[in-house]
Amino acid sequence: MSNNPYTALETRFRRYSALSGASAILGWDQETMMPSGGAEARAEQLATLDVLQHELLSAPAVGEELAEAEAATATLTPWQQANLREMRRVHTNETVAPADLVEARSRATSACVNAWREARRQDDFSAVSDKLAKVLDLTRQYGEIKAEKLGCSLYDALIDSYEPGGTMAWIDPIFATLKTELPALMDGILAHQAAGPAPLAPEGPFPAAKQKALGEKVMAALGFDFTHGRLDESAHPFTGGIPEDIRITTRYSEEDFTRALMGVIHETGHALYESGLPQDWRGQPVGSSRGMVMHESQSLLMEMQACRAPAFYRFLAPLAAETLGADGPAVTPENLNRLGHRVSRGLIRVDADEVTYPLHVMLRYDFEKALLSGDLQVKDLPGAWRDGMKTALGVAPEDDRDGCLQDIHWYHGSFGYFPTYTLGALAAAQLFKAAKDALPELDAQIAEGDFAPLLGWLRANVHEKASSRLTDEILTEATGAELGADAFLAHLRTRYLG
Amino acid sequence: MSNNPYTALETRFRRYSALSGASAILGWDQETMMPSGGAEARAEQLATLDVLQHELLSAPAVGEELAEAEAATATLTPWQQANLREMRRVHTNETVAPADLVEARSRATSACVNAWREARRQDDFSAVSDKLAKVLDLTRQYGEIKAEKLGCSLYDALIDSYEPGGTMAWIDPIFATLKTELPALMDGILAHQAAGPAPLAPEGPFPAAKQKALGEKVMAALGFDFTHGRLDESAHPFTGGIPEDIRITTRYSEEDFTRALMGVIHETGHALYESGLPQDWRGQPVGSSRGMVMHESQSLLMEMQACRAPAFYRFLAPLAAETLGADGPAVTPENLNRLGHRVSRGLIRVDADEVTYPLHVMLRYDFEKALLSGDLQVKDLPGAWRDGMKTALGVAPEDDRDGCLQDIHWYHGSFGYFPTYTLGALAAAQLFKAAKDALPELDAQIAEGDFAPLLGWLRANVHEKASSRLTDEILTEATGAELGADAFLAHLRTRYLG
Repeated sequence: MSNNPYTALETRFRRYSALSGASAILGWDQETMMPSGGAEARAEQLATLDVLQHELLSAPAVGEELAEAEAATATLTPWQQANLREMRRVHTNETVAPADLVEARSRATSACVNAWREARRQDDFSAVSDKLAKVLDLTRQYGEIKAEKLGCSLYDALIDSYEPGGTMAWIDPIFATLKTELPALMDGILAHQAAGPAPLAPEGPFPAAKQKALGEKVMAALGFDFTHGRLDESAHPFTGGIPEDIRITTRYSEEDFTRALMGVIHETGHALYESGLPQDWRGQPVGSSRGMVMHESQSLLMEMQACRAPAFYRFLAPLAAETLGADGPAVTPENLNRLGHRVSRGLIRVDADEVTYPLHVMLRYDFEKALLSGDLQVKDLPGAWRDGMKTALGVAPEDDRDGCLQDIHWYHGSFGYFPTYTLGALAAAQLFKAAKDALPELDAQIAEGDFAPLLGWLRANVHEKASSRLTDEILTEATGAELGADAFLAHLRTRYLG
Repeated sequence: MSNNPYTALETRFRRYSALSGASAILGWDQETMMPSGGAEARAEQLATLDVLQHELLSAPAVGEELAEAEAATATLTPWQQANLREMRRVHTNETVAPADLVEARSRATSACVNAWREARRQDDFSAVSDKLAKVLDLTRQYGEIKAEKLGCSLYDALIDSYEPGGTMAWIDPIFATLKTELPALMDGILAHQAAGPAPLAPEGPFPAAKQKALGEKVMAALGFDFTHGRLDESAHPFTGGIPEDIRITTRYSEEDFTRALMGVIHETGHALYESGLPQDWRGQPVGSSRGMVMHESQSLLMEMQACRAPAFYRFLAPLAAETLGADGPAVTPENLNRLGHRVSRGLIRVDADEVTYPLHVMLRYDFEKALLSGDLQVKDLPGAWRDGMKTALGVAPEDDRDGCLQDIHWYHGSFGYFPTYTLGALAAAQLFKAAKDALPELDAQIAEGDFAPLLGWLRANVHEKASSRLTDEILTEATGAELGADAFLAHLRTRYLG
C-alpha cells in the first residue's frame, strides 16, 4: 500500500470494483446461461465475493485512510475530491450496519422473495405477509441505523441507497405537481384518443431470431458498441455486466415485436450511460453512474423520448419491415406511432404507458412511506391497494396478483426505489428538451437513424460527469434547472394532445 | 473460525473453492461469450481473484492450523485425513514460491504466450526464443524451490503440479516399454491398413446447429446431465466450470462432423468425471479430481476406448444419419469405424491418432527434461525437433510452425504436463479392460447407446474416489495393477490388427 492515504484508497477501491465486476458477470450468467443445477454453487460464489468486498472496506485501515485523506483534500484535484466523497459514501453503505443485521436481512429477503414467487402464482397474499412484515422490520432497523449515521430521516436514508442524496423534501413537491396535473391530463388524453383511429396490431408470428436481428440493428444505430457488449435473452430483461462489457437482455413474444424492441431500446439507454462513463475513472466510485434517477433517465430518454417520437417511427418502419419480412398497413410509421402512444388505465405498472406510469409509482411511494412509519400495516396492504388504485387510476384489481403482489421490490427489501422510476422519467423529458434546444436538427437526425449527435450531447452533459456531482447539479448544468415536472407535462401535452 | 483447526481449514478451503469456481465460470465466459473489448477488465477480475485466493492460503494462521491438525489426525476419519493431506498439497503449491518469483513468472509467461502466437503465425522461432529461455529459467527457479521443499528432483517437482506424486521413476519404465514396442507396432498397423479399403469421407456441409444437436444427443446418451452443464462453442475446445455446472465447448467444421463430435465426446469424458466427484466433499481438496492422468484417462476412455469401438458406430451411424439428414455409404457403421481408425505418421500432436500419439508425447518428454537440465539449449530446439521427429515418426516438419511452435505448453511455462496425455491413454485402456471384464454385456450396451452400466462402474471405481487416494492406488483397486502399458498395447493390437 502507498504511504499516501488517497492513493491507497484508490488501489483498494480498484480491487473492490474488480470483485463487483466479477459478480456482475456471474449475475448475468445466472440469468442467461446457467443451468438450473448450478444455482446453489453460484449463490455460494456470489456470497463469497460479497463477503470479500465487505471485508475489503470494513478493515480498520480503511476508516483511517478515509479520515487522513479527508484531512488533506487541498492536495487533491476536484475529481479526486469527488472520488473521496464517493468512497466515503460506498464505505458508509458497506459498513454502517452490523454484520448480524446484514445477514439477517439477507436471509429474510431471500426467504421472502421465494415465498412471494409462490404467493403470486397462487394469488395468496397471506402466504407471504408475515415474511414481508419481517423484511419491513429489518429494513426499518437498517434504515434507522443509517439515518442516525447520516443525520437524516429513516426514509431518506433508504432512498439514499438508490439515489445518493435523494430526500422526501426533494420528491414531495415534484410529486405534488404531478398529483395535481396528471389525473385531468390523463382524462383529456383518453378522450382525445377515443376520438381518433385505433391502431392495427402487426400480424405475427415474428421469429425471435429476426426480432434479435432488428434489435441489434437499432442498438447499433443508437450507438451500442458490440465489441464491448452483447444482447441475450432472459426471463426478466436487464442491463448487467460492466462498462467495458455490457450485457443487456430481452424476452421475445412472437406475437408482438414492438414489446421486445422497446425493451431493448430501454436497456440500450442504460448501456450507453455505462459505456459513456469516463475512461480515466474506471474502477473508482466517482467513475460510476450517478444513481437510479439518472440511470432511469437515460433508459427512458431513449425509450420514451427519442424512440417513441414520430420521427423515430419513420426510421423504424422500413427497417422493421425489411428485417422481419413484414409489411402492410400495420408496419407504417403512422400506425407504429399510434401503437406506441396508446394510453390506458391499467392494473400493472410494468405494462403502463408513460402517461399513467407516475400514478402507479406515486401510489407505491405513499404506501411504502406509510408501511415504514407504521401508518399502514402489512395485513391491510391488499385493501389499501385496491382503494388506492380506484382513486388514482379509476380501476382496481380483482385479485392481489394484479395488485400488491405484482412487484418484487418490497419483498426484496427495496423500499425507496420506486420514486426513482418517475423521477427518471421527468429527468428524461427535461434532458431531451435541452438536447433538442442544443441540436436543432435532432428530429431529422432521428428520422434518419442518426443518433450520434444526441449521444454526443448525452456523453458531454451526463455520461462523462459520472458521480462527480449530484443528480440535481448535473441536471442544472445540462438543462438550466433542477429536476421538476414541467418538461414532462409539456412533453405529454405536445405528444398526446398536440 | 472454529476452535478446531481442521474445521477452520474446511471453512477456509470452501471459500477458496468458491473463488476458484467463480474464476472457472469467468474463464469460460471469456472464451465463449465475452466481447473482445472486455478482455482487459476480465484480466483484472481474474488476477484479483487469484490474489485473494493466494492471500487466503498464505495467511500465517493457515500454516498453524495445518500443523495443529496434522498433529491430531487420530481424531479424523480417513477421508478427513486425506483431505488434510490434500490441503497441505494445495497450500504448498500456493505458497512455496516467493511472491516476486510468482509474479515474474506470470509476467514472463504472458509475454511469451503472446509472442508465441505471433511467432507461430509468422513461423519465426527466433521471435520467441529469448522469451522462452526466460520462462524456462523462471520455471527452473520455481521447480528448484519446490523440489527442495518436497525433497525431490526438479522435474518431479514440476510434474507434481499436474499429476500429484508423479515422478520420472514412475514414467520412465512405462515409456521405455512404449519406445520398444510402439514403432514396430505402428509399422505393422500401417502395412495392415494399406492392404485394406480406404474410408469414404461423409459429404457435407453439415450445419453447426445440426452437429450441435447430434453432439447433445450423444452427450445425453453418455450420461451428461444438462441441468448441470452446457455445450457451447470456442476457438479451443475445453471443459470448464465446476462440478455442479460444467461448461464444455467445441468447434464445428461444416466439412467434417466427426471432428467436433469426437471432441465433444472427449470433453464429455472430462465432464462426467467432474460431475461424479463425491457430493459430500464438494469444495474440499479431497473432493477434487485426482490429477491430469486420471482426468485424461476419463476423456480418452470415452473418446478412444468406448466411442471408437466398432460397437459404438452401430449406435452412432443411424443417429448421425437422422440428426444430420445425411445418409449413403459414408454414414454406415463400417465406414465410420474405418474413418475413426485411420493411422498416419503426422506432424501435429493434436491431430494424431491413438497409435502415434505417444510418440509425439515421448519426444516432448525427452526434450523438456533436456531443456530443464541444460542438455538442450532453447536455440537448438528447432533442429532437435526435426531430428527427433524423423527418428520417432519417420517424418519431419519443413517449418517450425508444424514443429516446435505447434504447442502452447512450454511457452506457457507448463513443463511436466505432456507425459500426462499418454499416461492418461494407458490408464484409459487399463480401466476400460477392467470395466469390460466386470460388465460382460458392455459391447452390446454400447451398441444400444446404453452407457449407464459403464458410467456406474466409473463412478464407483474412479469418480467417487476423487483425491482420496493417489492415481496408482485408484488404478490398483480398480484394475488389479499399477499403471502400465500392457492393456494399451493389447488394445492397439486387437483394434488395428485383430
